[in-house]
Amino acid sequence: MKSKLVYFDNASTTPIDERVFKAMLPYFKKEYGNPSNLYEMGRNAKRAIQEATEKIAKVLHCRPDEFIFTGSATEADNLAIAGVARANKEFGNKIIVSSVEHKGILAVCENLKKEGFEIVKLPVGKDGIVDLEYLKKELDDKTILVSVTMADSETGTLQPIFEIAKIISNFKNRQISNSKFSRFLNTKIEDPRFCKAKSGQIPNGKMAKPFFHTDASQAASYLNADVQKLGVDIMTLSAHKMHGPKGSAGLYVKSGVKVNPIIFGGGQQGKLRSGTENVPAIVGFGEAFELNQKQKKSRIAKLKKLRDKLEAGIFKSIPKVILNGHSKNRLPNFLNISILDVEGEALLLYLDELGIMVNTGSACNSESLEPSYVLTAIGNPYEFVHGSIRFSLSSDNTVEEVNYVLKNLPKIVAKLRKISPLDLSLNQKESISDKKAFVGNQMPHFLRKPKSNF
Amino acid sequence: MKSKLVYFDNASTTPIDERVFKAMLPYFKKEYGNPSNLYEMGRNAKRAIQEATEKIAKVLHCRPDEFIFTGSATEADNLAIAGVARANKEFGNKIIVSSVEHKGILAVCENLKKEGFEIVKLPVGKDGIVDLEYLKKELDDKTILVSVTMADSETGTLQPIFEIAKIISNFKNRQISNSKFSRFLNTKIEDPRFCKAKSGQIPNGKMAKPFFHTDASQAASYLNADVQKLGVDIMTLSAHKMHGPKGSAGLYVKSGVKVNPIIFGGGQQGKLRSGTENVPAIVGFGEAFELNQKQKKSRIAKLKKLRDKLEAGIFKSIPKVILNGHSKNRLPNFLNISILDVEGEALLLYLDELGIMVNTGSACNSESLEPSYVLTAIGNPYEFVHGSIRFSLSSDNTVEEVNYVLKNLPKIVAKLRKISPLDLSLNQKESISDKKAFVGNQMPHFLRKPKSNF
Repeated sequence: MKSKLVYFDNASTTPIDERVFKAMLPYFKKEYGNPSNLYEMGRNAKRAIQEATEKIAKVLHCRPDEFIFTGSATEADNLAIAGVARANKEFGNKIIVSSVEHKGILAVCENLKKEGFEIVKLPVGKDGIVDLEYLKKELDDKTILVSVTMADSETGTLQPIFEIAKIISNFKNRQISNSKFSRFLNTKIEDPRFCKAKSGQIPNGKMAKPFFHTDASQAASYLNADVQKLGVDIMTLSAHKMHGPKGSAGLYVKSGVKVNPIIFGGGQQGKLRSGTENVPAIVGFGEAFELNQKQKKSRIAKLKKLRDKLEAGIFKSIPKVILNGHSKNRLPNFLNISILDVEGEALLLYLDELGIMVNTGSACNSESLEPSYVLTAIGNPYEFVHGSIRFSLSSDNTVEEVNYVLKNLPKIVAKLRKISPLDLSLNQKESISDKKAFVGNQMPHFLRKPKSNF
Repeated sequence: MKSKLVYFDNASTTPIDERVFKAMLPYFKKEYGNPSNLYEMGRNAKRAIQEATEKIAKVLHCRPDEFIFTGSATEADNLAIAGVARANKEFGNKIIVSSVEHKGILAVCENLKKEGFEIVKLPVGKDGIVDLEYLKKELDDKTILVSVTMADSETGTLQPIFEIAKIISNFKNRQISNSKFSRFLNTKIEDPRFCKAKSGQIPNGKMAKPFFHTDASQAASYLNADVQKLGVDIMTLSAHKMHGPKGSAGLYVKSGVKVNPIIFGGGQQGKLRSGTENVPAIVGFGEAFELNQKQKKSRIAKLKKLRDKLEAGIFKSIPKVILNGHSKNRLPNFLNISILDVEGEALLLYLDELGIMVNTGSACNSESLEPSYVLTAIGNPYEFVHGSIRFSLSSDNTVEEVNYVLKNLPKIVAKLRKISPLDLSLNQKESISDKKAFVGNQMPHFLRKPKSNF
C-alpha cells in the first residue's frame, strides 16, 4: 500500500463525485425498474432518465429529445460517424476528420472505407491545431461529415470549433446560393421533414451537408458546451471524464440530422440506441454534468494555476524538455511534455512507485509502445514522442501534490538519463529510428540488445 | 407510497443483489483506474475485469479469452449477428433465426437485409417451440449463422438447443464429407488460422459455417450454461437479468469464430468491443453469475413451486384463461397467460395500484400496443394476445406474495370483464380484429370511440 496517492491522470478517467454517487444509489436497489415498463417503478426509472436528459440539455442549450445516452464515448463517436455516414450516403461519401481525433473516430473511419467512404485526415500544425486552409480546400459537394475534436485527449489543445463551424456554414451557404434552393436561404421552414442548414432550413438533405461533429469528451467540462454557440450538429460527451460514472456517455444530435443506429432492437433512446438503459449511470451523468457547471470559473482558475506551477517547475528543474501541443490554447488541466533521452513508460512506472499516476498518451494506447499518433501528427521525432508524459489534473488536486511531483520528477529523470544510450538535441527535427522499431516490441530498438542472426 | 410491493417482473430486470453491489463498490471511488493504464490502479482495474471474466468463463466452461463484455444484451446480440454476418459474408449470406428471438436480434437482421443478407425466420408451433424440420430444410451452403434463443423473454419456453446444435453439426459433417476437406473430418489441427467445425477442425472458414448463436439472457441463470455441452459457438448473457447491474452484458465467442466489431476504437475486449470498460458493472456481472450458480437446484425448485401455485390458483379462480408457451419446457419462473375479454395494459395498471408489478410482453414492447410478435407467432388471435400478462418470479418472491396476487387478480378481472365489449370463446382460432387496428393507437379499436369523419 502506497502512503501517498497523487492522481494526475484525469484525462483517462476520474473518480466519481460523492454527490454523483449519492444520486445514483436509489436506482441500484430501490428504484430498479426497467424504464420501458408501464407500472410506477418503470415510470420512475423513465422519469429519472428524462430528468438527467433535461439537465444535460440545459447545459448544451438544446432540446431534451436532441440528446441520447450511449454506453461509452467510443460508442457515441462510432454512432456519430458511422450513423451519419450510412444515413447520408446518397448525398456523398466523403468524411473529413482531423488527424488528432480519438481512436474511436479514426478506427470507425478506417472501417467505413470498406463501405466505400473516402476519409480525409486534416493535418495539424506544430502547435497541434488543425489546418483550416486544408479544410477549406477539401470541402466539396461529396462531403457529408466533418469531425474535429474540441480538444484532443493527449495534449488538450483546443481546436478552433467556431471557425470550423463558420467555414462549413459559409461553404453550405455558397452551395445553396448556387442551387435551385437559393430561395430557401433565409426562410424558416418548420416542417420537420426538412433538414436544417446553418443559415436557413433547406428542404433537401443534400444541401444541409456536411454535418459537423465534435468530440467534447475532454473539453465539455471546461469550455462552454452550448451547441448553439458552438455551431455543431453532433457532439459527443463522456460522463467518466467529469467525475461521473463509467458506462455512460452520450450524443447530441441536432434535430433534422439523419443518423442510422449502430445497435438495433427495442428502440430505446429515440430509436438511436436500443438496449435497456443503464439507469443509475445515466442519473449519475446528469448529476455530474450539472455539478460540473457550478463554480466552473473558479475551478478553471484553480486548475490553471496548479498546472502552470507544475509546468514552470518542470521546465525550471529539468533540462531538455519540450511542451507538446499549444502553449496557450489548451485545456486548463492538461500538461503534455517530452522529456528527452528518457522513456515515458519507465518514467510512468517509477512515478507509480511513488504513488504518482500519469500517462504516456491516450489511455487507449498505453498498452502498446507504438508512438502516439497525436504527438506524431504534430511532427515530433519518434524519440521525442517516446519520452512524453501527460499530466491531467482535476480540481481535487492540490498544491502539495504538485510540489510532491516537482520534488521527485527531476530525480527520476536524472536516474533514467544516466542509463540512457540517447543524447538528443532539442533542435532535432527528424526521427533517428524507424517507426516500425516501436511496434509490437517491449522496448524501442535503441534500448534492445541486438538480435542474433541465428 | 404503496404499502406493499410485489415484483413479479424479473424477466424485465432484477434488483441488484446486496453482495453484488458490495463487490462493485470499491470500483466507483477507490479503485477507479482506467483498465488500459499501466500504473498500479490501472492494473488493479484490469485484474478486476480479468477476475470477472474468469468467474463467467468457469460457469460457461470456456477460456477467459472467449468471453467479452458489452454494454447491454442488445449490443451483444447485435455484435453476434451483424459481427458474424459481416465477417463471414464471403462464405454465404443466409441467416436463420427463430421468430421468437429478442428484438435486438430481429431488428439487426432486418437491417442486415439492406446489406444483402437473406433472413429466414423459423416458425414456432402452438407450444412456442421452433420447427426443427423447417430448420433442416433451410440449412444450405449459403447459411452462415443460425440464432435461436435459449428461452424467449415472453413465455420463457425452452428451445431445443442440444437438438439444434446436433442438426447443425450433422449438416456440417455432411458438407465436409462431400467436400475435398473430408480428410480433415476426424483430425485435429491446432493451427489457429483454421476455423473449427463441430467434429473436427477444417482449414477453411467455409466449412465451419453455419455458426450457432443463442441468446441466453433469460435462461442462463436457470439452465446449464456450459457451452461445450450446449454445442453453441456464440452466446449472449445479461447481468441485470440475474441480480447483477444494468449496463453489463457479454458475449461468448468460441475461439476460431470470425466476428467483426460493431464499435471500433482503442481495441478493448480483445478488439471486439472498444471503449473504456465499465469496471464496476463488469465486476458486478462476474459476482452475480458466480452467486447465481450456488444453490441453483434449490432455488429452481422453490421458484417452480411458487410459479405452479400461482398458475394453478389463477386457472382455478378465473375462467377463460389460456397458458402461453410450453406447459412443461419452460423457465421455472415464467408464467404467461391470456385472460380473455380483458386488456393486458388495463390489468397491469390495476395491479400496479395494488403494488403488484407484472408485464404484458417483453419490456421493450410495452410502450406500444402492437400485439406481441412472440405470442402472435404462436398462432394466437390478436384479442388473446391483448389480454396477456407475464409473471416472472425471482427467488426473492414469497408464498405470501403469490397469495396476495391470487386474492386480488380475480377481482380486477371481474371488474374489467364487466365493462368489456368482448365475449371471446376459448376455442376461437382466428383474429376478429385487423392487426393494424392495434398499431400506434392508445387502445384497441374495439374500445375506441368511432372517429369523426371531419
